[in-house]
This record gives sequence, C-alpha cells and structure tokens, in this order.
Amino acid sequence: MQNTTLLKITCPDRVGLLAGITGFVAAQGGNLLEVHQFTDPDAAWFFARLAIDTGTIEGGPDRLRDEFAVLARELNAQWTIREASRRMRVVILVSKLDHCLADLLWRWQSGELDVEIPVVISNHDTLAPLVEREGVPFQLIPVDPADKESGFRDLATTLRGARPDAIVLARYMQILPDFLCEEFAGKIINIHHSFLPAFIGANPYRRAHERGVKLIGATCHYATPQLDDGPIIDQEVVRVEHYHQPEDLLRLGRDCERLALARGVRYHVADRVLVHGRRTIVFRD
Amino acid sequence: MQNTTLLKITCPDRVGLLAGITGFVAAQGGNLLEVHQFTDPDAAWFFARLAIDTGTIEGGPDRLRDEFAVLARELNAQWTIREASRRMRVVILVSKLDHCLADLLWRWQSGELDVEIPVVISNHDTLAPLVEREGVPFQLIPVDPADKESGFRDLATTLRGARPDAIVLARYMQILPDFLCEEFAGKIINIHHSFLPAFIGANPYRRAHERGVKLIGATCHYATPQLDDGPIIDQEVVRVEHYHQPEDLLRLGRDCERLALARGVRYHVADRVLVHGRRTIVFRD
Amino acid sequence: MQNTTLLKITCPDRVGLLAGITGFVAAQGGNLLEVHQFTDPDAAWFFARLAIDTGTIEGGPDRLRDEFAVLARELNAQWTIREASRRMRVVILVSKLDHCLADLLWRWQSGELDVEIPVVISNHDTLAPLVEREGVPFQLIPVDPADKESGFRDLATTLRGARPDAIVLARYMQILPDFLCEEFAGKIINIHHSFLPAFIGANPYRRAHERGVKLIGATCHYATPQLDDGPIIDQEVVRVEHYHQPEDLLRLGRDCERLALARGVRYHVADRVLVHGRRTIVFRD
Amino acid sequence: MQNTTLLKITCPDRVGLLAGITGFVAAQGGNLLEVHQFTDPDAAWFFARLAIDTGTIEGGPDRLRDEFAVLARELNAQWTIREASRRMRVVILVSKLDHCLADLLWRWQSGELDVEIPVVISNHDTLAPLVEREGVPFQLIPVDPADKESGFRDLATTLRGARPDAIVLARYMQILPDFLCEEFAGKIINIHHSFLPAFIGANPYRRAHERGVKLIGATCHYATPQLDDGPIIDQEVVRVEHYHQPEDLLRLGRDCERLALARGVRYHVADRVLVHGRRTIVFRD
Repeated sequence: MQNTTLLKITCPDRVGLLAGITGFVAAQGGNLLEVHQFTDPDAAWFFARLAIDTGTIEGGPDRLRDEFAVLARELNAQWTIREASRRMRVVILVSKLDHCLADLLWRWQSGELDVEIPVVISNHDTLAPLVEREGVPFQLIPVDPADKESGFRDLATTLRGARPDAIVLARYMQILPDFLCEEFAGKIINIHHSFLPAFIGANPYRRAHERGVKLIGATCHYATPQLDDGPIIDQEVVRVEHYHQPEDLLRLGRDCERLALARGVRYHVADRVLVHGRRTIVFRD
Repeated sequence: MQNTTLLKITCPDRVGLLAGITGFVAAQGGNLLEVHQFTDPDAAWFFARLAIDTGTIEGGPDRLRDEFAVLARELNAQWTIREASRRMRVVILVSKLDHCLADLLWRWQSGELDVEIPVVISNHDTLAPLVEREGVPFQLIPVDPADKESGFRDLATTLRGARPDAIVLARYMQILPDFLCEEFAGKIINIHHSFLPAFIGANPYRRAHERGVKLIGATCHYATPQLDDGPIIDQEVVRVEHYHQPEDLLRLGRDCERLALARGVRYHVADRVLVHGRRTIVFRD
Repeated sequence: MQNTTLLKITCPDRVGLLAGITGFVAAQGGNLLEVHQFTDPDAAWFFARLAIDTGTIEGGPDRLRDEFAVLARELNAQWTIREASRRMRVVILVSKLDHCLADLLWRWQSGELDVEIPVVISNHDTLAPLVEREGVPFQLIPVDPADKESGFRDLATTLRGARPDAIVLARYMQILPDFLCEEFAGKIINIHHSFLPAFIGANPYRRAHERGVKLIGATCHYATPQLDDGPIIDQEVVRVEHYHQPEDLLRLGRDCERLALARGVRYHVADRVLVHGRRTIVFRD
Repeated sequence: MQNTTLLKITCPDRVGLLAGITGFVAAQGGNLLEVHQFTDPDAAWFFARLAIDTGTIEGGPDRLRDEFAVLARELNAQWTIREASRRMRVVILVSKLDHCLADLLWRWQSGELDVEIPVVISNHDTLAPLVEREGVPFQLIPVDPADKESGFRDLATTLRGARPDAIVLARYMQILPDFLCEEFAGKIINIHHSFLPAFIGANPYRRAHERGVKLIGATCHYATPQLDDGPIIDQEVVRVEHYHQPEDLLRLGRDCERLALARGVRYHVADRVLVHGRRTIVFRD
C-alpha cells in the first residue's frame, strides 16, 4: 500500500476508454494493482477506480496527477487521484444516541476503519465522555430550535475548519440546511433508520410497526437538500415477526444501522463510491 | 394428522384466556398437539392457533365446533375450526407472466403445497397450456379495458362458484374492484413485486433502479380495496449492485416473488395467519 | 415486568401436558402473559416457557415454585422458575481480541442486555482498560502453557465465587478443561468463528479461505467437553467473494461473531433456551 | 450482444498485464464493453474476463483468437475466447428428485438461462415426462448397483456424443467415477444439499437436524474425483428453527438448492467462473 495511488473517474462513455486509461498508466510507468470498471448502458456513462503502484513513476502521484489532468480534460471527466496512505478526515456528527458512534469509534480504534477523526460534533453534550475517552476532540454546537440558523452557522465554521473528506451523520437527528448539503455535496453520509424509500422522515420504526412489515432496515446515503432522497450507498435489513414491538424494532434496527453505516463510510473513505445522479456505483471490498 | 383439528382464534385479551381455552379442549377430551399464542400488548388483543387431536373426542371436530361456539361468544372472539385433512381450495389468478404460477404448480404437484386447485383463471389465454398439462382447469375471463366492470362480474361469478378458501393473485396485473376485495376479504393473497411500502403501484423494478436502491424485494399481502396497502404476510429481499439493469432486477425479483408468495400461501392454507387491522400474526412453520 | 415470573420446563411428552400446566398456573391464581411450547415428535419430548404474572398469587413466585415442584416430580421434568426482575449474573472470559467484549459491554451499558457482570476474566491484561473504564472489575488469571492446570484451578475458584448464571467465552482462545465444562454445564456460552460443524478447531477463517467457501459464519453454542460440539444456540453468516483475503474474512467474520454471540447471550439470560441432547429449543424474541 | 466476444484468462501475475491485454484488444480494433479483473496476491495469479465488441475487428473473433494465442503463450496463460451468441451446451443428469430439474427447465424456457440442452440423462425413467413435455430429449441410462462400471461406460459414450460445455448434476444421486470427473474436469457442476464443507456425503439434512444447526444450505460446486471437495461456485443458506423436522429441512433446502444451482450454472455458461486450485473466481452478474 505504501506507493498505492487511487484514481477515481467518471465520464461520458466512448470507444477505447479503458484501454486509453490503462495505456496511459502504463506509459507513465505505473503498474495497475486493481481495476474496477463499469459502464452504464442507459446513461452511456463510464465509471472506474484504479489502484496504481506509483513507486515506479518518476515524480510519483503528483506527476501522475498533472499528466492525467490533460487526459481527463479531453474525456470531460470528473476524477480524483489520492495516495492510499493519505487517510481521509472524517468528522462525525451525533446527537444523543450512541450506537452508531460507538461502533464507528470501535472500528476506528481497531484499525478496521483507517481514517483520521479530527472532531466529533454534537448538539448535546451527552456523548462527550464516550468521545473524549478515545482521545478524540468533542465539540458541542447547540442547535436552538428557535434559532437553528445560528447553530448551523457555527457548525459550518467548525466543519470548514476541519477540512473533512467525509461528514458522517451518525444519528444526528437534525436536518442539515441546504447550504451545508450543497457546500459539502458528495461528502455528507447519513444513516437513515429505514429501508428507503420506505418510511422517509421521522419515526420510521414506529411506522414500520404500524404498517406490519416483515423486514426492517437501514439505509446509508449521501445527504442532499431533499430529505432522505440522496444517493444510496448501502442498505441492510433484518427479518421481524409479529411479536416484535416498536422497541424491538429499535433494538434490531440498531444492528442494521451500525452495519450499513460502517460499510458506507468504509467504501467512501477508500474511494470506492462514485455518484451519478441519484445512483451510486460502489466497488465493494 | 388424521384427526388433527385446527382452532384459530382472535379476541380481546383478558386474564386467564389461554388457560380457559386449553382447559376447554382438555375438558372436551381433546389432546393439544401444538399451541401458538400471542398477545399484542398495545392492542390488548389475543391471538392463538391450536392443533388438537380430536380423535379422542366423542363427536369429533363437529362436537368441538358446537361447544366452542358458546365459549367464543362469551370471549367476543373471531374464530375458525377446521380439520387439517380438509384441504383448502385455492383459486389462482394470472395474466401472462408465468413464474409465480409455475412455482405454485410445482409445489402443488410435489405435495409441498397441500391444497386443491379447482381452477386457474386468467384474462389472457397465454398460460392455458401450462395449467392444463397439470390437469388443472383453466378459465379465460377477459377484462376489456373499455369495460372492466363486465369482466369482473364474470370473474365474481366464477369465483363464487369455486368456493375458494384463498384467491391467489399470482401476478394477475389487474387491480381488483372494491366489491371483490370486500366479498372475499381476508382470502385474496397478492404478490407485489417490491418491498412494500416502497414502490407502491406500477413498475416497481424500474423505479427501484432509478432510485438506486441496494436491495429489492417482494411482498405477499392480503388485497384490500386500497392498493398495495393490505396486511403483509411475508416479504423477501435480495441484494442488488450498481451493475444490475432493470431487466436484472426483474430476474432477481422473480425469485423473491416466488419465495414470498409460496410462503404466504403456505401459511394461509395451514391457518397460520391471523389478521388484526393492518398487521398479521404469522405462526410460521 | 415487575411481577413477571419465568417458568422453563422440559419433560417427556404425554397427553394433556400443556392443559395441565396452564391449568395449574390458573389454579394458583397466576395470569399467563406469554406461552411458548414445542413438542419434539421424534424424541417425544415436551418443552415450554411460560411468562406468568405472579402479582396475583398469594405467596408469589416462591409459593409457585413450591407448588410446581410437586407437579414437576410427577412429570419427571427439568425446570426452573425465576423472577424476570432478578437479572442473571454473566461472567465474561476474554483473551486479547476485543470485538466481542466491546460489543457485549456496549449492549450492557445501553440496557439492551439486562444482566449483571460481576467480573471480566482474561489470561492477558490487554483488555483491562476497556473493562475497567466501564466500571466492571477485571481479573487477570494467566494460563501458563506449561502448566495450564494451575491456571484453570484459579479460574475455577474465581468462577465459583462469582456464582454465574452464564459464562461467556468472548473469544477466550483457551479450551476449557472437561471438569469446568461439566461443573458449569449448560451455562458456558462460546462463540466459534465458523459456521459449525464446518471448520471445527483452530484458524477457521484461514481454512475457509483455502477451501474457497462463498459464505462464512459464526456459531454461538454451549461449550461441552468435546471441542466445538456443544448445542448450537444461534448462527450468523455473511456472503464473501473471491477478492476477500483471509484478513477480510476476519473483518467480516467479526460482525457475524458479535451478532451471533449477542443473540445467544440474550436468549440465554431471558430463559429462552432449552437444551435436549445436542439440540437447542430457542424461543426467540 | 451480437458481436460480443468473451475472453477469459488466468495466468501468473506480472507487471503491466492488464494494460498489455487491454492494449492488445485496442490494437486489434476491438472495443472493451466490460472488464473484470482480479489479482490474487497470495498466489500471485491474475484472472480476467473481458467482454469485447469484435464487430469492428476485421476477421472477427477468429482473428482475435489467432492473434491472442501468441500473446497467451508468452503469458503462460489458460484462456478461452467465445462468441457470446454461441450458446453453451448443457447436459443435465438427474435421478428421481425433480425440483432442481424443474427449476432449470423453467429458467431455460423463460429465456433466463440462455443455453442449449441437447439431452437430459437419468438412471431412472421417473422424470421422462417432465423432460419430454418441454421438447427436450430424455435418455435413460440405468446404473446397476452390481455393475456400475457398465452404466458409467454408457454414460460416458452419451456425454461424449453430446459435446457438453457443462454437465449439471441436478441431484443425480450417483457419485461419478474418477475417469469421468477427469475427462470433463471443470465442466461438471454439482449441487450438494448442505453448506459445504459441513455434512459432506449422504443424508446431510438428517445430519444437520441431529447436529441442531440453525442455518442449512446448499452448495454448487465443480465435481472432482474427491467427493464434495471441488471448487465452490456459489452457496445459499436459510435460517431454520428447532421446530423444523428433517422433512422441513428437505423442503426449505430445496429452495436453497434451486437458487444456488441456478446461479452456479448461470455464471458458468456466461464464462464468469475461473478456477484456481480449490477456489473459484466468480465475476457475478
């Protein structure tokens, strides 16, 4: 992994794209370690993720980036090139529920989730001890129901200062204002406690119980200005029975939420997720 | 199974209910083979299914039925008593898609689905050969888009004549009129090709693809006048990936539909499903 | 739950058993809240779990216990009666891996796992901080490979002192000696990191990778003197692909282990597991 | 799909492999439609499947094949090149159980399984009607327990005559002799009714019930001379409960078998499976 560089690219499809890109890498002296590619036939759109050993490239990833910029312009591509060893910065936002946070922190401590966590932000101080005992800074940013705008301004300032590659809403329980969704578009990862698009909005478990569904779930998706409507990264479900009361659904759902969120964050921070409209391409590991 | 009688009961909860019912069976000389019971604490409602050996009851199931009627009135109960050996009559309605029908017919031929199929009804003659080669009567009842009422009147006549314990909409593709939903309430089993309540209505797979969900499913539910809103009996899901096109979702979904429908019908014809409002109690086997 | 008493019983099947037991409860003045029953037709054995409101019984659970003892003797039954409010004592044994321990502690702190944890025991001090920061006593009991017997004698002493209702081997990595398996028979819950009976013994993930299986799993079971052979309480699986290396199986398997173990412990401490030979009857919630 | 050609290749890994291969395709004038690639880091082995539009290659797939042979020799590769429109020939072997056969025939009739079925072979005539009504030739080749060798010689003759790309053991219930396993190595697809490597050999459901497992499954794998030990293509599981008797496991297992076998065959006939030792690389669709 020492010299692994990750190239992520989406662009309109055309003949010879993959050969062109792999040829480019070879011409630069890079060695392809892993290639994932997908062409959406309906949209005529191309998606790829390449893991490249850039140890053999004179000038390394920076040189690759400069050279690729020329090709990418030609392809009308959106792209990123990142050294795999440069860990992403993940800011976590929580409220009072701790299950998603505790799970992410455990995965991070164990090394399974290989990121930096510059700060955990909450609108309540409930979870400060859980965060601080892991040596992670905790910041309280209250959101006054009577003046949410002011709270979100503070939040924006802190987020900007943290330079996040991902903002994880680990049951934050606040709907982010549009300006934040737009400023950090493609970086805000939410966990919704239902199997979207079922039960958009509040109290999904209660509503799932009333509807009498036989499976409940959780959805990890990118937040967009439209509530619970952003591109879905991963989903998880669990079978429920008639004897499960709403509090049982909460309990069973927590495990779904933890798994779906952990996977979604994992894929994002390894540059495995590409977005096209409301759909995601996820090259899973 | 020779002398097995099935008692299904729902009533308002009260102290001593189960002891009262099991005591009643014992007093009649019946032997309890299997008991399933559930009390919904929110609704304060009681549900039970008892399998009783009535070989030791003088007068058999009929006597049990007469005696139980008295108790049931007292309990303000809804109930049925049925000899397990009396196989339910299942009418299947189809259109042109054959996967659910073929699956049900195979399970029926193999003895896994222990029912009688007096007739399969369709608004097209496409599937007549598939039905008739199994020795099952096929009846064509066209539903003219310009005069659906007339078609549904014919359908009603045929259904009444078939005295069905269950009417299975095995991808019938027609929305049944309210009067049929009401006349055969609690007996019409539909398979909807989505994970309800997501994607109610037409073209769920196409819409699932557009939404970019990562799991698709099928829902087996009782039909009610409100579209795709009846009590859910069972659901099935399968994971999908970005490379699955709408036609792949159709393919993967077919297996979900077959499984969810087969289970739903199985539970219904063994008196394992009890309905309370929009929820079902399913004592699975 | 205040006055809920749990009656667990297994005995040879006979005519009228359930009516006899429910009638007994009614005669004592108890109200049945929940009944689970199963009769194994092959073994001709009866299993039941009853949740009884004993608030209406003069003399309460103690009286019920005394009276039931007479009936139980007659039935040749194994049984327990326990007030639901009396939380079970769960001792956790660990080695150096923390994922199962962390998960159990989190579920315990959140109230999802409603037990007492008198002590966590380990043969290494690695996880002491994780335990102690939760306010749970940690005890180091080294097991010297050259003299395991001595270590296990110390372990036995500590276990006896803790009066456990359950001993959870949360990846303890030591094979318990026969005398401990026998002394605490039916109380030792192990998590094995494979889908038993596949890959009994050491390094199951490595062997699963070599065999090229497409699903891996974890098994929660009661420990018996024969390795990985005790009655299975629960199992969990996850799909794997060719690109998953042994370290990926470890990662994916950890989530299986956590879920299977958490459920197994949950069922045990709520008196939901009954054992018959190598099989368990689990009345799940 | 008209001009789609499928290139499957496995060879020792080396620097520049994928760029070399994609460059080769581009130099021939072919357009890459889809690329799947995997490098096994432990084995240092390379696997790829390329879907190529060869409509733009003068000389078409034949030319591509000739040219690729030169490169492949250099790479020390095993490879195949096949026009996607050339449907594979699949011979199905059955005994008396029909569920896998009926499922495959249905998928074939519906077009989901796009193959030719030159003949279905059985050691009993039980399933002849099921086969012949679909217009597929049925051939009875008895295997006399007292002289299996003679039966298998007849079988070999018929198989050779059928020039199969795949031989599907759809619950054939006979262990093929080594010489057949070797002659058709990599082409014989078996469905075993357990979650291998658990319950190798006969009566897996009975043994699963005795062991008290909580999940049962089915395994689709290539047959090799060593029983139930060949490379696994796909597996499926279903949760079971204590109340499931051996005959219930049979019933639930049938659905696992049908799904796992259908997927395994589907992947094989689309050149999506590559074998390396005891492991398979499956580029799923």
